[in-house]
Amino acid sequence: MNPKWNGQFSCFDLVARTGDRIGQPVHTVVSLGDVGIGADDFVVMAGPCAVESERQLLSTAEAVAEAGARILRGGAYKPRSSPYSFQGLGVEGLKILRKAREQTGLAIITEVMSEEDVEVIAEYADIMQVGTRSMENYALLEVLGSCGRPVLLKRGMTSTLEEFLCAAQILAMAGNPQIILCERGIRTFETATRNTLDIAAVPVLKTVSHLPVIVDPSHAAGVRSIVPALARAAVAVGADGLLIEVHPCPEKALSDGNQSLNFTEFRDLMDDLQPYLAIPQEKREFRPRLVVGGAD
Amino acid sequence: MNPKWNGQFSCFDLVARTGDRIGQPVHTVVSLGDVGIGADDFVVMAGPCAVESERQLLSTAEAVAEAGARILRGGAYKPRSSPYSFQGLGVEGLKILRKAREQTGLAIITEVMSEEDVEVIAEYADIMQVGTRSMENYALLEVLGSCGRPVLLKRGMTSTLEEFLCAAQILAMAGNPQIILCERGIRTFETATRNTLDIAAVPVLKTVSHLPVIVDPSHAAGVRSIVPALARAAVAVGADGLLIEVHPCPEKALSDGNQSLNFTEFRDLMDDLQPYLAIPQEKREFRPRLVVGGAD
Amino acid sequence: MNPKWNGQFSCFDLVARTGDRIGQPVHTVVSLGDVGIGADDFVVMAGPCAVESERQLLSTAEAVAEAGARILRGGAYKPRSSPYSFQGLGVEGLKILRKAREQTGLAIITEVMSEEDVEVIAEYADIMQVGTRSMENYALLEVLGSCGRPVLLKRGMTSTLEEFLCAAQILAMAGNPQIILCERGIRTFETATRNTLDIAAVPVLKTVSHLPVIVDPSHAAGVRSIVPALARAAVAVGADGLLIEVHPCPEKALSDGNQSLNFTEFRDLMDDLQPYLAIPQEKREFRPRLVVGGAD
Amino acid sequence: MNPKWNGQFSCFDLVARTGDRIGQPVHTVVSLGDVGIGADDFVVMAGPCAVESERQLLSTAEAVAEAGARILRGGAYKPRSSPYSFQGLGVEGLKILRKAREQTGLAIITEVMSEEDVEVIAEYADIMQVGTRSMENYALLEVLGSCGRPVLLKRGMTSTLEEFLCAAQILAMAGNPQIILCERGIRTFETATRNTLDIAAVPVLKTVSHLPVIVDPSHAAGVRSIVPALARAAVAVGADGLLIEVHPCPEKALSDGNQSLNFTEFRDLMDDLQPYLAIPQEKREFRPRLVVGGAD
Repeated sequence: MNPKWNGQFSCFDLVARTGDRIGQPVHTVVSLGDVGIGADDFVVMAGPCAVESERQLLSTAEAVAEAGARILRGGAYKPRSSPYSFQGLGVEGLKILRKAREQTGLAIITEVMSEEDVEVIAEYADIMQVGTRSMENYALLEVLGSCGRPVLLKRGMTSTLEEFLCAAQILAMAGNPQIILCERGIRTFETATRNTLDIAAVPVLKTVSHLPVIVDPSHAAGVRSIVPALARAAVAVGADGLLIEVHPCPEKALSDGNQSLNFTEFRDLMDDLQPYLAIPQEKREFRPRLVVGGAD
Repeated sequence: MNPKWNGQFSCFDLVARTGDRIGQPVHTVVSLGDVGIGADDFVVMAGPCAVESERQLLSTAEAVAEAGARILRGGAYKPRSSPYSFQGLGVEGLKILRKAREQTGLAIITEVMSEEDVEVIAEYADIMQVGTRSMENYALLEVLGSCGRPVLLKRGMTSTLEEFLCAAQILAMAGNPQIILCERGIRTFETATRNTLDIAAVPVLKTVSHLPVIVDPSHAAGVRSIVPALARAAVAVGADGLLIEVHPCPEKALSDGNQSLNFTEFRDLMDDLQPYLAIPQEKREFRPRLVVGGAD
Repeated sequence: MNPKWNGQFSCFDLVARTGDRIGQPVHTVVSLGDVGIGADDFVVMAGPCAVESERQLLSTAEAVAEAGARILRGGAYKPRSSPYSFQGLGVEGLKILRKAREQTGLAIITEVMSEEDVEVIAEYADIMQVGTRSMENYALLEVLGSCGRPVLLKRGMTSTLEEFLCAAQILAMAGNPQIILCERGIRTFETATRNTLDIAAVPVLKTVSHLPVIVDPSHAAGVRSIVPALARAAVAVGADGLLIEVHPCPEKALSDGNQSLNFTEFRDLMDDLQPYLAIPQEKREFRPRLVVGGAD
Repeated sequence: MNPKWNGQFSCFDLVARTGDRIGQPVHTVVSLGDVGIGADDFVVMAGPCAVESERQLLSTAEAVAEAGARILRGGAYKPRSSPYSFQGLGVEGLKILRKAREQTGLAIITEVMSEEDVEVIAEYADIMQVGTRSMENYALLEVLGSCGRPVLLKRGMTSTLEEFLCAAQILAMAGNPQIILCERGIRTFETATRNTLDIAAVPVLKTVSHLPVIVDPSHAAGVRSIVPALARAAVAVGADGLLIEVHPCPEKALSDGNQSLNFTEFRDLMDDLQPYLAIPQEKREFRPRLVVGGAD
């Protein structure tokens, strides 16, 4: 049996093969202006599921910036999980995102779903988001390898962490080491929530990889009332940030309204997190340690 | 469509039928001496997976009591997930547990797996634990209905929260309303951890039921290094307590050694939780609210 | 790496430890009068989910006997998957089952859910059925070890085949080697059917164990229209028999009506199977072979 | 509650919306020369996982053609489920496939994984295969809408049948109604087999859609010894064909060797199926019927 990461997790021979972490105390930090994802900051990305209109996006951008978010999310190209659902504004949406950046200074993250769209989206976005359904779209990962932008990679719907890291490696080997991992819940038999947030994924990924890890409590919950609790849990386990859906009027959102927060709710959530974020990191002793080898 | 709890969770018609919570601001508190589970205290239950010897148990009892645990766990009757595994000391183990209570003042929780054992275990234990594999053992739940002791009910390996609450209701209808729910992770495709801790189960259960909810981070993790992070997450989402495996020498434990903490690690975990527990509950605004009816 | 069964299945070290099959060409046959389950016969067990009345059961017994069933199923004690569901007639139901045996000559199979009920049920039944929710009820399995009746063991809702065989071994080690394994579908994300019939479980179990394996297409399907197709598949993969729900009037059944066949449908199903059963077993070459060792 | 397909399956409102089947007794037949998939023929597609060399492919093509296969499978572009695995010969592989068609008359099916490759693959292939990991790659489905070739769509790793049909609809709405559905097993907790063949998917899909449905027993099994049993089951439930992995020397295959048959084994499998295929379709009465409306 090969030596394993810290003698505990059972499935990361793969990671060991690339030797990413052995002897490397340094973690990857994805820098955007003065924001460092994976550094000491806790970075909140917020915004609507889809860019619906200039007014909707700009008002959201201002509200989330004021509440402390550093990055604006918003989909210009939407996955059509059904042939009847909203498909996004396309380039028009990208232009609205750019305008929001100009007005608020927020960096922009938006999803890319097609190899063909990589180039145009890279012109407008600061971070390219790869959605859950695309985590194993290897052709897309290859093209993103040379897009010149950091990539936020969402975990697949039922992917193991090993498969998740494997997708990250394909991206890295294609030339792009600027990767942010995003835990967003996995499919289980539970129906009370849209997905099951695998909160343990955060300390596991922080132990076996050097990449920043953020949490999307909105898609995990599927209902807005428990988003704040999941956000607190993400802080408590050491996540590097959050990706949260915010909409001026969730009841009227074209997609994901049930899980979106309105501006007041988002501000409350940000306030709610402060005392948790204020706990000195050194107090968070007893975190997962990296020990090469060791018995099971 | 029937009205649903707070218009958000999709599966709790069942709960609505019993009308447990409508108009009832009162939560169930399970009281043991001066400990109130489900009240303002955060109650930690700790101890070995199995009672192996008097010396092992008594030393653990002292260590966990000193670190702040209020309840001692320890299995006298063990489930045989394989015909070759350790099956517990039986009544001998119960006597050792009683001795530990006398010496430390800790209340005792231990598992019951057979209808036949209910009576004898109820003589010794303060809380009867129903394990994951027994959650749907309705015959056992019926007998526990009249055992005169509170019951800690663990969620089934792949049970939905609706099924979990249904088992709790069977117990309540059999005459025993003193129930503590325990989230201990569910089976998913992830193999890095033994189970996947469904951290969202805590706020969901606290919203739709009136029962105390505790978290077992040890069985969820399967590896000790991430137990503290999961324990912090449990505090952050509003759990009423924890159930944690502690062993004088985890490397030599007859069962579950990989996920057990030693005394130092347990003390560190308890220290680590303090600042999280110190955050005033009022700061935890924006928690799930109970609203009858409402749109989806 | 240990040698494995036939170098192919990845999880049966457990079985290898008991050495059941090495050098043993003999398969277990569970004999009831002139019926041999696990021998050359293809044995169909049929009847209602629950014994509801004498009239309902006797008419069903006659109908299924005439159509070729050899064993009558019917629940006298029902699991209460909800506190509101029908719980069975108890001893009264057992007496009705006995009367049906006297009138038709069919052997009787009925479910046992409680250790306490084992003795009384064993007085009336020819085969004791352990339901899906009880597969890991080790206390019950222990008591059944000395009940003097064959046991039909249903696979747990999300059990692996290794866990299934482990439960069978616990029963065998408790003194009862007369075991029939029953594949009845496992829980998956699919909702079109009640469960997902793991048809591959039949050839795998027939390869790695010496026990008879039957299929319950009714619980797997959940809807009657595909029960016949699943029954044909069971014959095609080499199952030793079937367990099928039949009711005089499925629309009025107190439980499982959607998946029950009426008498005509059951007769059609039995006719439908004949040409598949007539294919000589020797034609079914190329079946799983047992080879000790071998590469992966 | 909306009317549902035949009053039984619970999840196909979506299908009902397109009204594909109401009043349409006609099934889709995908025709390739004298082969009609979805018509009376039972069509076997066979060949290696990957095209490794001209010699490997041509010898396989001859062997499977002689045994009765009508279509040759072989991957020229391979998904890299790990950055270290074989990625295929690309255009070179396509040329070898064309040569095999010229020599044997077999039609060709090969996988497409990238939008960019659609055009070149469509020049060489008779059927475009969309793999499990690409079922939800909507950008790829859009491009395939106008590729001018039939598409074989594999079910996603944990997709429900509703999601599967939704992907098929996206393809159809993009302009390509020539679709073959392929059940290839879904991910479950079972580890004895690579995936769990959802054999019930065949009668369900045949009931609620008008598309041909074939079964891939090789990926479902993961081990060759049970491939023949699963192939028989596919015939018994009414599948329109099979997709099977065959390799001259499975022990030396660059991918999927464990589940590939050698030439003799494939011939035996084809012989083994004959008596099952010879059972007159009319004998297969009692198949799922389409009834609009009806109670649950």
